[in-house]
Amino acid sequence: MGPQYAPSLRSRLTPLLLFLQIGFIAIYAFYIEIESNVKVDGITFSSFYPEFQDVNVMVIVGFGFLGTFLVRYGFSGSGFNLLVAVIATQWAIILNGIESWYHRGKIPINLRSLVVAEMCTASALISIGAVMGKTNPVHLILIALLEVSGFVLNEWLLQTLLKVQPLNGIMLLHIFGAFFGLMLTWVLHRKGSEQRFEKEKFDSKTGLFSTLGTVFLWMFWPSFNSVLVDNRTPGTKLAAICSTYLALAVSAVTAAAVSVLSSPKGKLHPIHMQSCMLAGGVAVGVSMSAVHQPWEAMTIGFTAAVVSTIGFRYLKIHMLFAFQCHDTCAILSTHGLPGLLGWLAHLLIQIKDDHTTAIRFAVFHIYTLLITITLSLSMGIITGVILKWKFWRPPQDKKCFDDQAFWEFPHQAVRK
Amino acid sequence: MGPQYAPSLRSRLTPLLLFLQIGFIAIYAFYIEIESNVKVDGITFSSFYPEFQDVNVMVIVGFGFLGTFLVRYGFSGSGFNLLVAVIATQWAIILNGIESWYHRGKIPINLRSLVVAEMCTASALISIGAVMGKTNPVHLILIALLEVSGFVLNEWLLQTLLKVQPLNGIMLLHIFGAFFGLMLTWVLHRKGSEQRFEKEKFDSKTGLFSTLGTVFLWMFWPSFNSVLVDNRTPGTKLAAICSTYLALAVSAVTAAAVSVLSSPKGKLHPIHMQSCMLAGGVAVGVSMSAVHQPWEAMTIGFTAAVVSTIGFRYLKIHMLFAFQCHDTCAILSTHGLPGLLGWLAHLLIQIKDDHTTAIRFAVFHIYTLLITITLSLSMGIITGVILKWKFWRPPQDKKCFDDQAFWEFPHQAVRK
Amino acid sequence: MGPQYAPSLRSRLTPLLLFLQIGFIAIYAFYIEIESNVKVDGITFSSFYPEFQDVNVMVIVGFGFLGTFLVRYGFSGSGFNLLVAVIATQWAIILNGIESWYHRGKIPINLRSLVVAEMCTASALISIGAVMGKTNPVHLILIALLEVSGFVLNEWLLQTLLKVQPLNGIMLLHIFGAFFGLMLTWVLHRKGSEQRFEKEKFDSKTGLFSTLGTVFLWMFWPSFNSVLVDNRTPGTKLAAICSTYLALAVSAVTAAAVSVLSSPKGKLHPIHMQSCMLAGGVAVGVSMSAVHQPWEAMTIGFTAAVVSTIGFRYLKIHMLFAFQCHDTCAILSTHGLPGLLGWLAHLLIQIKDDHTTAIRFAVFHIYTLLITITLSLSMGIITGVILKWKFWRPPQDKKCFDDQAFWEFPHQAVRK
Repeated sequence: MGPQYAPSLRSRLTPLLLFLQIGFIAIYAFYIEIESNVKVDGITFSSFYPEFQDVNVMVIVGFGFLGTFLVRYGFSGSGFNLLVAVIATQWAIILNGIESWYHRGKIPINLRSLVVAEMCTASALISIGAVMGKTNPVHLILIALLEVSGFVLNEWLLQTLLKVQPLNGIMLLHIFGAFFGLMLTWVLHRKGSEQRFEKEKFDSKTGLFSTLGTVFLWMFWPSFNSVLVDNRTPGTKLAAICSTYLALAVSAVTAAAVSVLSSPKGKLHPIHMQSCMLAGGVAVGVSMSAVHQPWEAMTIGFTAAVVSTIGFRYLKIHMLFAFQCHDTCAILSTHGLPGLLGWLAHLLIQIKDDHTTAIRFAVFHIYTLLITITLSLSMGIITGVILKWKFWRPPQDKKCFDDQAFWEFPHQAVRK
Repeated sequence: MGPQYAPSLRSRLTPLLLFLQIGFIAIYAFYIEIESNVKVDGITFSSFYPEFQDVNVMVIVGFGFLGTFLVRYGFSGSGFNLLVAVIATQWAIILNGIESWYHRGKIPINLRSLVVAEMCTASALISIGAVMGKTNPVHLILIALLEVSGFVLNEWLLQTLLKVQPLNGIMLLHIFGAFFGLMLTWVLHRKGSEQRFEKEKFDSKTGLFSTLGTVFLWMFWPSFNSVLVDNRTPGTKLAAICSTYLALAVSAVTAAAVSVLSSPKGKLHPIHMQSCMLAGGVAVGVSMSAVHQPWEAMTIGFTAAVVSTIGFRYLKIHMLFAFQCHDTCAILSTHGLPGLLGWLAHLLIQIKDDHTTAIRFAVFHIYTLLITITLSLSMGIITGVILKWKFWRPPQDKKCFDDQAFWEFPHQAVRK
Repeated sequence: MGPQYAPSLRSRLTPLLLFLQIGFIAIYAFYIEIESNVKVDGITFSSFYPEFQDVNVMVIVGFGFLGTFLVRYGFSGSGFNLLVAVIATQWAIILNGIESWYHRGKIPINLRSLVVAEMCTASALISIGAVMGKTNPVHLILIALLEVSGFVLNEWLLQTLLKVQPLNGIMLLHIFGAFFGLMLTWVLHRKGSEQRFEKEKFDSKTGLFSTLGTVFLWMFWPSFNSVLVDNRTPGTKLAAICSTYLALAVSAVTAAAVSVLSSPKGKLHPIHMQSCMLAGGVAVGVSMSAVHQPWEAMTIGFTAAVVSTIGFRYLKIHMLFAFQCHDTCAILSTHGLPGLLGWLAHLLIQIKDDHTTAIRFAVFHIYTLLITITLSLSMGIITGVILKWKFWRPPQDKKCFDDQAFWEFPHQAVRK
């Protein structure tokens, strides 16, 4: 068998998966019940289900196929994404329900709790974007478990200490996920990887698969930003949808303009375009509860796309050389910077709309960010240190970004 | 023209398609009317439409792209799937309406009847999975017509003889489709095909297309299992959605664990993963009306994925050598075994929940299965015998699994 | 840099994009407001959103991936489509709101106005199908701006002069888009392009990507045709959905039958099939408000598929040689002819249903068509003349149908 054998999978992945899954089933058997009440926050079930499915499509098809651009990493990009997503979602349902378990002894699930769990999952999937291709699935699952735990802890701290609204807390997922992932990839840095990995490239077909993932993210982002918006005030949800839609439209146009401007050859870069046209959705999501006018959302989308595209072009390579921080999917410029920008926009709009409480709000808002970033950085470092353990059998450098390390291609083997 | 010419298409397919289509239009002109009543079983139209579209996406994109994994069979896999699906759906609408035609002289159609027709179609598409690549489109259409007829007859028998609930009857589509398809491929067995067909393999790009089909099936399976669940009791539909979602999540994790365990190289197999992570949806669908707790669904999903993955790994090749039964898409382990498991789970849960009527229910439940399997096996054999007729011009062995047999690639021809 | 440099992008595209986007933001800041009223035409918000998303998926994934069949033009096909779509939609929202701006000083946006704007965009995307591959993105944006302006002007003329119902006016988008595009490609004809462009071909992988786009158009077409249908009369919307669904089903079957019949090799043509199976949706959409019976829709779908398939097979090449009109995506046979057929069907059904006003209606109906075609032809010629200006730097013949002209492939460049 020799080099064909993937030692990390049978001796590490299978026991981990079986242990987790049987454990989850046991916990669910004792503590989870389906909520019989069909009305959730004034939203009837039937109008909530399509939005739940949109978020589901974003997490599975969107994030999954976004990660297929690497020329020899398509199965891992989409397959491990699904594997991580379902584990993280089951874990997040449990963690999010601890409070209600403490009070009532049971954790109710309904479509809303599934959506919240999928958003915690999205946060983990963002982190994973930074280390994609340089890790094995065991790493990815550990990252997901720890990231989701950190993120739920962060939400709980924000709500307990600062009375942050749940929606605002959840939307920080982009910031939390991005800084967690950056710390992780910094700790896991491999010496000598400043030269590009041999297989870290895209071609026209894999680029089209990731285009597909991107457009599914892009199209359903209005659902992602609006699904948890309270529907009781007429028009709030509509405003969230229209704002996100317009921000994404502006983002796509601006990303194209700036991508050409910043290219030495004066051309568009397909992978840059794909990531950066989503920046508007990220930034508007983070500032959702403050945005009331379409032009505010559009301006945020414009700025986010400029920052994101320039970040992708110059920061990604700079981060690698200056900070030894190799960021496969450029999550810093796709989620981190637009997230911070959205945070800033939230603050500025709030100050503009209400001068009297400006300082109080600013202090509150800065605390929120500080807690989030501190927690995400420290959890990222802790996770990185745990993953550095050789016990998890990290892939060798030459096996990075390669499906062959984990997947059977029976007929290719026959050909040899 | 010579070897480029596809004799079965112009002389067989075109007349068959035109005859069927003009016939359907004539029948629809006389007997079909759109139901003006907007409420169907207490479900308003507007909440039903998104679920109808989810099922539609599963039938067209899901099943269609699931069949694109074969390296040279992508156009046939997705194109013939669509062709068969639309013919089968039109036919199923007519057959399902016979009773109402008998009583009222007209067959009403609404979104519910379209969904039921698409589910009959799904049953035919499952059967086709067993013979994919070894048949021409004329065969596929005949299979679809006969399979749908058999399935509707089975539903009618179950409802008439045993008073089986419509939902329970329809969900047997996995069992009916799988055993029909297995009989078919057994009767159509080609001598000498024990050695693999030269073109029956996948590559990394076609594998990604089928991943795409799979995830669309996987994501929308909760809609498939819940769309016909009665919405009048609050929470029933929500329970169906959450149960299916959790069963599918467990299925994906378990399929990965078992795929690695059972692989000689200790790696994941992309095509196995794709099929087997759907097993939970199949099994929970069949036992839908008995499942009330999430952990029940999760346990069913776990068992289904174990059975399905081991079945794919060992049974597929065993069926070929021992029973001369070549099953292209491994429908036995994807739909057949999980379907039977779901049937068993239904029985066990029902007995657990209500001891008093256990024996009565068990007898009723076993009769249901016996009728379904008997009818599907006999219809499968009849269909196989009809298709063995040389009149339908089956493709030669060397033309199997090859788009070139049926599709023009003008520019490739020019190159020669 | 030499031949790698894309002169049209940095000096033309970036300024144009930034100018348009900043301009749009300014206009939106002053004149656009989100409508707080949640009920639109008796349709509540929550039931409208899924249909809006279906239309969005059609415009972005459907049209975008339909244009990926060209073997070296995938990024441009899907990427420029998105870029053009978001600019056209922002522009259409402004133009459609001029009347309400004139009366109230503000333009309200809601989901309905987004849907109407996306339909104007669809009309522009149809036109672009005719010149795809032979233009640069600057051209495409100018086409979109002028086409949308023309289309909105047409709608306004029809409503003002002839009191045409908004739904009927909008559904003429197929006819308007097709004739606009044909004039455009005729004016922009390149000498010597009667021989096929070297790169104007498909392969099995790009063909599958365009299959994917096609099936998303095909599946969600019932939403496209029904989304603007008034929901106040019970059953009207259901009738629109069922009619479109059945027409598309018939279309797919008929397109396959006729494609084989008209092929010299007696085989199916993948690209023909993809375009022609949509013909039924186009034709039924145009005649939507007159179709009341399923069989009427099915007959229209049958005829449309026959006309479309024969048109694709013979007219496309004839148009090129006889009229020097090179039509990349065969929009004449996909949208033009089925659109005209739908117009004729509308007239015939109306006459059949009500003889008394036949002549009055026929005159009215012919005027509608005449205005639409006159305006689309003249706007197409004007646009073509503007685009002929060398200032926009059209791509050279050998760079046509090639992503390399506009997109960076860094690793391919390294390899040289």
